[in-house]
Amino acid sequence: MKNVPFKGIIAYPITPFDENEKVDIPLFKHLVERLITSGSHGIAPLGSTGVMPYLSDEEKEEVTEATLQQVKGRIPTLVGVSNLTTEKTIHHAQFAEKAGADAVMIIPMSYWKLTDDEIVAHYDAVARKISIPIMAYNNPVTSGVDMSPALLKRLLEIPNVTMIKESTGDVQRMHYLRRELGEEVAFYNGSNPLALAAFSAGARGWCTAAPNLIPELNIGLYNAVEEGDFEKAKTIFYQQFDLLKFIVNKGLPRAVKSGLNILGENGGNLRSPLKPLHEKETDELKNILKPLLINTII
Amino acid sequence: MKNVPFKGIIAYPITPFDENEKVDIPLFKHLVERLITSGSHGIAPLGSTGVMPYLSDEEKEEVTEATLQQVKGRIPTLVGVSNLTTEKTIHHAQFAEKAGADAVMIIPMSYWKLTDDEIVAHYDAVARKISIPIMAYNNPVTSGVDMSPALLKRLLEIPNVTMIKESTGDVQRMHYLRRELGEEVAFYNGSNPLALAAFSAGARGWCTAAPNLIPELNIGLYNAVEEGDFEKAKTIFYQQFDLLKFIVNKGLPRAVKSGLNILGENGGNLRSPLKPLHEKETDELKNILKPLLINTII
Amino acid sequence: MKNVPFKGIIAYPITPFDENEKVDIPLFKHLVERLITSGSHGIAPLGSTGVMPYLSDEEKEEVTEATLQQVKGRIPTLVGVSNLTTEKTIHHAQFAEKAGADAVMIIPMSYWKLTDDEIVAHYDAVARKISIPIMAYNNPVTSGVDMSPALLKRLLEIPNVTMIKESTGDVQRMHYLRRELGEEVAFYNGSNPLALAAFSAGARGWCTAAPNLIPELNIGLYNAVEEGDFEKAKTIFYQQFDLLKFIVNKGLPRAVKSGLNILGENGGNLRSPLKPLHEKETDELKNILKPLLINTII
Amino acid sequence: MKNVPFKGIIAYPITPFDENEKVDIPLFKHLVERLITSGSHGIAPLGSTGVMPYLSDEEKEEVTEATLQQVKGRIPTLVGVSNLTTEKTIHHAQFAEKAGADAVMIIPMSYWKLTDDEIVAHYDAVARKISIPIMAYNNPVTSGVDMSPALLKRLLEIPNVTMIKESTGDVQRMHYLRRELGEEVAFYNGSNPLALAAFSAGARGWCTAAPNLIPELNIGLYNAVEEGDFEKAKTIFYQQFDLLKFIVNKGLPRAVKSGLNILGENGGNLRSPLKPLHEKETDELKNILKPLLINTII
Repeated sequence: MKNVPFKGIIAYPITPFDENEKVDIPLFKHLVERLITSGSHGIAPLGSTGVMPYLSDEEKEEVTEATLQQVKGRIPTLVGVSNLTTEKTIHHAQFAEKAGADAVMIIPMSYWKLTDDEIVAHYDAVARKISIPIMAYNNPVTSGVDMSPALLKRLLEIPNVTMIKESTGDVQRMHYLRRELGEEVAFYNGSNPLALAAFSAGARGWCTAAPNLIPELNIGLYNAVEEGDFEKAKTIFYQQFDLLKFIVNKGLPRAVKSGLNILGENGGNLRSPLKPLHEKETDELKNILKPLLINTII
Repeated sequence: MKNVPFKGIIAYPITPFDENEKVDIPLFKHLVERLITSGSHGIAPLGSTGVMPYLSDEEKEEVTEATLQQVKGRIPTLVGVSNLTTEKTIHHAQFAEKAGADAVMIIPMSYWKLTDDEIVAHYDAVARKISIPIMAYNNPVTSGVDMSPALLKRLLEIPNVTMIKESTGDVQRMHYLRRELGEEVAFYNGSNPLALAAFSAGARGWCTAAPNLIPELNIGLYNAVEEGDFEKAKTIFYQQFDLLKFIVNKGLPRAVKSGLNILGENGGNLRSPLKPLHEKETDELKNILKPLLINTII
Repeated sequence: MKNVPFKGIIAYPITPFDENEKVDIPLFKHLVERLITSGSHGIAPLGSTGVMPYLSDEEKEEVTEATLQQVKGRIPTLVGVSNLTTEKTIHHAQFAEKAGADAVMIIPMSYWKLTDDEIVAHYDAVARKISIPIMAYNNPVTSGVDMSPALLKRLLEIPNVTMIKESTGDVQRMHYLRRELGEEVAFYNGSNPLALAAFSAGARGWCTAAPNLIPELNIGLYNAVEEGDFEKAKTIFYQQFDLLKFIVNKGLPRAVKSGLNILGENGGNLRSPLKPLHEKETDELKNILKPLLINTII
Repeated sequence: MKNVPFKGIIAYPITPFDENEKVDIPLFKHLVERLITSGSHGIAPLGSTGVMPYLSDEEKEEVTEATLQQVKGRIPTLVGVSNLTTEKTIHHAQFAEKAGADAVMIIPMSYWKLTDDEIVAHYDAVARKISIPIMAYNNPVTSGVDMSPALLKRLLEIPNVTMIKESTGDVQRMHYLRRELGEEVAFYNGSNPLALAAFSAGARGWCTAAPNLIPELNIGLYNAVEEGDFEKAKTIFYQQFDLLKFIVNKGLPRAVKSGLNILGENGGNLRSPLKPLHEKETDELKNILKPLLINTII
């Protein structure tokens, strides 16, 4: 029986920085707590939203530990441990396991485009060194490599690779996955504007930074899908569509930080070269976000 | 009140040829009859499936008249009248109206990429010369021009442009359409593998050549959607997914002709340079099609 | 010995229309004459510039005859005869041969994407019916199909397919062609902004509408290349680069017509849906064109 | 007067590893020496070829120092110092300056797509902290961001940003650069198969890993260009074209390492997940490389 600890809304916290662009751990813990108490079904630190690639090894370890201390087992935790080299990926995966993570997420980061064999060897080498499950993450824009359904099938033959996260933004890819890999494959959607279509296609969960801003709508969509209520799912999806497009278009860390400020929360600072939203962008976000806080159907 | 005569499954017949590559009108009428009796909600001759661009003006007129004679008002008819020049588009649109068509479908064919203003003027010039409604068709791969939601909004201001067919294959485009144009916009999906996602997004109908081969599954999907039954819709969709991908990948006229032969029907000949499926491709189609004829859940 | 009648600057005339959007044959002949007397090495009616796809069969025949009457053998003539169906392509190729054309140009127009075998059969069927040489034309944007070097190699095995025109705009494609097909292959560049790079890569000629406006600069570039003068070629190329980009970006028929007007020539009318350049675009063209008429280094 | 220390062939060494996947500094120095003695005009450690992103900060510093110790001022040195964060980029740039580098190369690495303002601020922050010149490097495939000519123009206004390296592989981009930025702009080509076209377009140099394998042909091309000999340049370019395509297609570190082995040199090991060429690929490289060692025209 495959170990698949996630279902529903998997929330991605940002990593906030202080004025000196150092990671602000107390604020990070506060933001994690918000995600838990607002009902997220899982939590995923050190994703793209958490600007993992901009952090030093030590900072990644700090963030991992802070998450597990704060979560205290209330919901499952998925830690991002991707790295260009196999050696470093193993290092971070082992650290996450020791810290208590329920699973790790790995994208085949590639500066030099990897062959299928290199990718399989990479996952296999990591999988052998840990005993918690791995979510294989496909996002060609970020990683520079597009893992075909055939390759993902090979990865799923590695015993503790049990989940797939798809972020190509193409729902047809999910149809393929399900056809190629069988109805039981646990795949997750990582493309926000595709949330409705992905659930229609059978996605088990939605990996998203949106619960930082509109958790009720995200969870509401999932619940409507679980109830099998087509019309309600469609209505709730269209309510949040503009926000989902906005945060993707502007970059998740920048957009979430500004959205938190609009909500009266502290979003911390960004690390250079990333800069906050311009005033005009912030106004646009206000106009999208404000109505959602009052007029939801839930 | 907008005149929107279509909803559900809009079936596209092929245009069959005889041994001399002349249009075979009696066979065409027979194929149209099959589509009607198997339950299609609308019929659309002279689409891409009907190899409209390969026909002479006289042949297009023959096919138009043959369709309306055969349909005899049992279901609404949508005639393809697109042409590179405005003058010819008007000619064919007027012919279709006189022959009794319920609506015409127009894609902005463009050898030289058209500006937005040129496209609006093109639709407007045609719309002024007929009184039946127009379905504006967006398919950048075919037409060479991608009509933005903003442009489609302009087209919908022309009184008898009342429907939009979207074939980009990107469900996010449909989300945009609905957000930009309002919940009441009548949009139709023209991308077969997107059928489920498009209905989830609110599409009013599905323009498809698939009912030539698997009408029960196509109509079954629509019915499940109408009943709001998420799970049933998903199941029926995945049953037909491989066939939908196959006919799109191989080219609709080639694939439908071969599929008809497999079903024991006469699919006629193709017009050169189009050639029938190779034997290997035909075998592949057989393997996809055969199980669908027995094991459907309907 | 292969029959390769073209070398140097192959000029593409526009097809001008009168106020009723009918082809204006006397004006067309005048424009052809301008191209000849300004030194073009070949002439190619019924190309994209000549809006061939917008013309009826009869109009194409008229234009073919008018060209050959006007040229009177002073330079070789290359007539565009591409058509969606094989039958019509043969018809126009035979007409061109009878009218006295030195060669025909054929792009595999495809509404439905053609397989390699379908394309080879198409060219072969035409080639068997004429005895003048064929230039195979590759332009995926226009035709919807990208002919690989391997496919072009197959086409060149047909005895009277002797020339290739490449318009992908990617100079690496030309490098491939020459490597795959041998140093002796006669390939021509159809991408205006690539003129210098294509000649550097070994192109035998440049198929271009630019001689309607700046024949001295086009011929000057070719002459510098023939002299093997790298620096001079570079200088003359950069002088005309902005104009080449402009006419490509705005569409050749629209841009050439306006450019002729700026030069004090009659450019005729366009056929709908094509519309003339806007005033602002015309001003931009004036600013690019005017300095070229005075300050050339030639 | 702008400080532009490079012209001609700028050679990129690989970074070799030992059996434990540690950087092999003595072998690295040997490979640098080969590049110098075979006539390269400049040397660029810690580029993509040198797998810079796979190295730790300490390893980058070691490689920087080893290069400058080995070069001893015989040719100018360009050190890659790109990093996701501004702070780390400054750190490595300052280290390179202190170690004696003539210039640093910076690509705007971006996990999250940077805005133009963020990119300008990034370069500006680094430029203020060093006094040696910066080569701004555009390679959208690698960095995830495509710097427009307009943006590059802004970067060139920063006093010590004096050079541009373009690796889009599109020669038209170089034409634009020269038109937009003026004849005097120092731009360099980073796309191997574009070497001839780029020199034709006016590139001042060619940034390439090829001199690890075929220095005579690379330098021969540059010399032919300098002599203004069109035909000779073309001939020498086509001699090396297959090798240039091969090393790009297979990934520079993998291909160069195998090529060195074929030449009887020690290419060291790669760092996981990168793996050596397969046997079949190695044979292909042998077939391309062997004839070049004997039959060159130089």
